[in-house]
Amino acid sequence: METFSDGVIAIAATLLILEISVDTHSANLTHDLLRLWPSYLAYVTSFLTIGIIWMNHHTVVACMASVDRVLLFLNLLLLMTIAFLPFPTRLVAEYLNDPGEQTAVIVYAGTFVLMAVVYNILWRYARTGRRLIREDVPDSRLQAIDRAFHPGVPLYVLTLLVALVSPLASVLLTFAIAAFYLPSAALFER
Amino acid sequence: METFSDGVIAIAATLLILEISVDTHSANLTHDLLRLWPSYLAYVTSFLTIGIIWMNHHTVVACMASVDRVLLFLNLLLLMTIAFLPFPTRLVAEYLNDPGEQTAVIVYAGTFVLMAVVYNILWRYARTGRRLIREDVPDSRLQAIDRAFHPGVPLYVLTLLVALVSPLASVLLTFAIAAFYLPSAALFER
Amino acid sequence: METFSDGVIAIAATLLILEISVDTHSANLTHDLLRLWPSYLAYVTSFLTIGIIWMNHHTVVACMASVDRVLLFLNLLLLMTIAFLPFPTRLVAEYLNDPGEQTAVIVYAGTFVLMAVVYNILWRYARTGRRLIREDVPDSRLQAIDRAFHPGVPLYVLTLLVALVSPLASVLLTFAIAAFYLPSAALFER
Amino acid sequence: METFSDGVIAIAATLLILEISVDTHSANLTHDLLRLWPSYLAYVTSFLTIGIIWMNHHTVVACMASVDRVLLFLNLLLLMTIAFLPFPTRLVAEYLNDPGEQTAVIVYAGTFVLMAVVYNILWRYARTGRRLIREDVPDSRLQAIDRAFHPGVPLYVLTLLVALVSPLASVLLTFAIAAFYLPSAALFER
Repeated sequence: METFSDGVIAIAATLLILEISVDTHSANLTHDLLRLWPSYLAYVTSFLTIGIIWMNHHTVVACMASVDRVLLFLNLLLLMTIAFLPFPTRLVAEYLNDPGEQTAVIVYAGTFVLMAVVYNILWRYARTGRRLIREDVPDSRLQAIDRAFHPGVPLYVLTLLVALVSPLASVLLTFAIAAFYLPSAALFER
Repeated sequence: METFSDGVIAIAATLLILEISVDTHSANLTHDLLRLWPSYLAYVTSFLTIGIIWMNHHTVVACMASVDRVLLFLNLLLLMTIAFLPFPTRLVAEYLNDPGEQTAVIVYAGTFVLMAVVYNILWRYARTGRRLIREDVPDSRLQAIDRAFHPGVPLYVLTLLVALVSPLASVLLTFAIAAFYLPSAALFER
Repeated sequence: METFSDGVIAIAATLLILEISVDTHSANLTHDLLRLWPSYLAYVTSFLTIGIIWMNHHTVVACMASVDRVLLFLNLLLLMTIAFLPFPTRLVAEYLNDPGEQTAVIVYAGTFVLMAVVYNILWRYARTGRRLIREDVPDSRLQAIDRAFHPGVPLYVLTLLVALVSPLASVLLTFAIAAFYLPSAALFER
Repeated sequence: METFSDGVIAIAATLLILEISVDTHSANLTHDLLRLWPSYLAYVTSFLTIGIIWMNHHTVVACMASVDRVLLFLNLLLLMTIAFLPFPTRLVAEYLNDPGEQTAVIVYAGTFVLMAVVYNILWRYARTGRRLIREDVPDSRLQAIDRAFHPGVPLYVLTLLVALVSPLASVLLTFAIAAFYLPSAALFER
């Protein structure tokens, strides 16, 4: 399961760059490249977030003794959401700072909310009653992961709400969350 | 063989998102995104189906003691069909609910029929007289896989026939098959 | 080295499908899809050939005890040629049966000639004086690989020459070579 | 960490080819393909450079005993820069020898400067006081890697400066650096 998941996550991250494009025959390339700043912001935000997701995925999988059909289904759902990410990233890249930006950022934030929800369901399914957890994983570690995952859904719901007021602020907050979440990478074990 | 196959399957799944596109300068993005529902349906259906295929592939490979040239050729044929899937997925995404939808869905359903046929040939080749099967795999497991694979071809032929009456119903049925097949994921062993 | 090579080869094979495209709002989709036959021929030919290359790559790598900087460079050159393949494949898909088909097929055949040449250089470098070969690999196996690789360059040069007379015949010959080479897959060991 | 990194690097290299495109209905395909020489130069230069990066990445990772959150973050930053490369490669492919070429090559060279800087920070972080280095790695090996990495930043800054005078010369220099760096592949251990 991990090889396939790793593959999908790495590919989704690398495909993000295909969503940034500049006109083929630009009269003023410097100007056009500067105007693309929403694309760079969207690229960096999505790439970092996918990086965090990948680290968290390893943290979770490393705790598991086995997988069952429910977990496989939840994992497939999670991968489907991650692989979807290049699409809202392109929407933000193209529409931020233009008419339609609110819709674009709502779809972007909504995708992250969905991702965080599926992640939490997956983790709670595996963790409840230590259903799929390895015997040698101490409870303290499970609680550390709990604490790391708790803020995910509320934070992404917040980006969704902020998008209603300021789409740019919402994307910047999503970027900040990726930076904020990075300490949870400390959970990651090689 | 498994790394290469896993790679192709994961990449094909992740490339699906590149087939969904919205106009660059949409006057009404919300409206345009809602009108894209056939794209989302096609994406989810193809992604889930590829997920099932990947699980089944592992189930089959895990039973094998060795591979020979015939099996390698059949596997290559199977991967070629899976890697082809983004093309009919884009056809469904673009043409469902528009003129040409019947052709699009027939190609989509036809690709799944071909995939199911190649899968069954591959499995029967490996299984007949336990040609490539590991000694420690009990007959009961082979029969369980038989039962899981039997409905594949008839079901996808059915989606092909339904496409002649209602293209939308055909895609929804393909989606339902992915959901129906998920229990066979229980065959999957980590 | 093998993981990276496998990755590049699998991705190149799966990207091929992105080179096939149909008009977004086709008035007669069935007609347009039938007219795309050169795309399907190019897809199948390139995919099968990449499949053969992958098998041969494993055969060669499995014989090696170590790699040195020259081999790494030759391998990178080989991967660069393989990763280039989607470009000439698209040329054939778009131009076969249209003006410009000769140029398109010459570039296609030329890419395969280059690939076969680099492959032979790589193999001869590793094999001469058993420079990089594992001690337990018998000479008979090296000679079997020699025999399997010998026809590669002349055959692809032949497709280049045939392209001067008939581009379609050249592509069909390339397809036939992929089918002809498949028996050499027997060299492959899991 | 290595599987994910390998995946991103391999995918970035293979996506480069998608940035080369020729008009769909070219009146004179031979002429148009010859005019694409900046695309081929950009493709080869970027592909070889990514190949070097991949080898260096293995060299570095092979010396490490463990990873911490800082290193994970630096590695993610490095991968983000590598995955960004198809974008400036396309700029060079499209604008070299045309108005806007200076901007295109400055962005291209700037990306390599950034990559070299992040690489050096990552290496120095791991190496200072042998923070993350395996005990059995001798100091002489660390010093060999130091020597191999030292010229990276100055050389890419030079390509940036050359771009101000001659964009073409800058790209050719970048190509030469990839060729010059290849001997450092000797550091690579399978």
